[in-house]
Amino acid sequence: MIKTELSAIYRDYIDCLNERDLPRLNQFVHSQVQYNAQQIGLAGYRRLLEKDFSEIPDLHFNIQLLVADSSYVASRLTFDCSPRQKFLGLDVNGKRVSFTENVFYEFEREQIRRVWSVIDKAAIEAQI
Amino acid sequence: MIKTELSAIYRDYIDCLNERDLPRLNQFVHSQVQYNAQQIGLAGYRRLLEKDFSEIPDLHFNIQLLVADSSYVASRLTFDCSPRQKFLGLDVNGKRVSFTENVFYEFEREQIRRVWSVIDKAAIEAQI
Repeated sequence: MIKTELSAIYRDYIDCLNERDLPRLNQFVHSQVQYNAQQIGLAGYRRLLEKDFSEIPDLHFNIQLLVADSSYVASRLTFDCSPRQKFLGLDVNGKRVSFTENVFYEFEREQIRRVWSVIDKAAIEAQI
Repeated sequence: MIKTELSAIYRDYIDCLNERDLPRLNQFVHSQVQYNAQQIGLAGYRRLLEKDFSEIPDLHFNIQLLVADSSYVASRLTFDCSPRQKFLGLDVNGKRVSFTENVFYEFEREQIRRVWSVIDKAAIEAQI
């Protein structure tokens, strides 16, 4: 697989999330996916997303930076949204907050196999 | 510049930090470097590192993941260290903590021009 293909697949994956098209998630996410070193599988990954969409109805993923090689994608995502109540243990309570997530994905063929994500919690703390 | 070269330059930069060889920092860091959208310049960048090394004497940068293209490096760094007092506003007080940083670098020629870093503060909070 060449680099541009993995970037394109990743952009399709983000479109899938923004369209809330979770039935299509299995196209992009491996059945045995790991998230931050935890084996959660596709069903667990989908539950995480459903929880996010429920708690943050206006959640939208914006790609600020994207770096890819033959097996990995690194992405800096920006968010500008209003979590309804708690988010990352913080009492956001509907306030509009801006924050970023720097995240790495290991791909196996055309699917996400491992994810290592760090969300800028300190930025949110500074806004509430 | 080809991809392997930027990865190699980045690994040299990390060696430079781990050797505390800050006089050599200007080889890797642009005089007008920006850090998390702030224009801090080489002198400000060096001061940040000096502060880190003073507050965390056993600070060591370990590269877990490295993705590079022609202009950008994305790196997941792992740390296992003992901040002497406060770190990121948290009272660590000498406790040994493990955490990660997901960070993007934009290069201009062979120098770091912009940095976007997110440190996993929540992981540290969970350990103290």
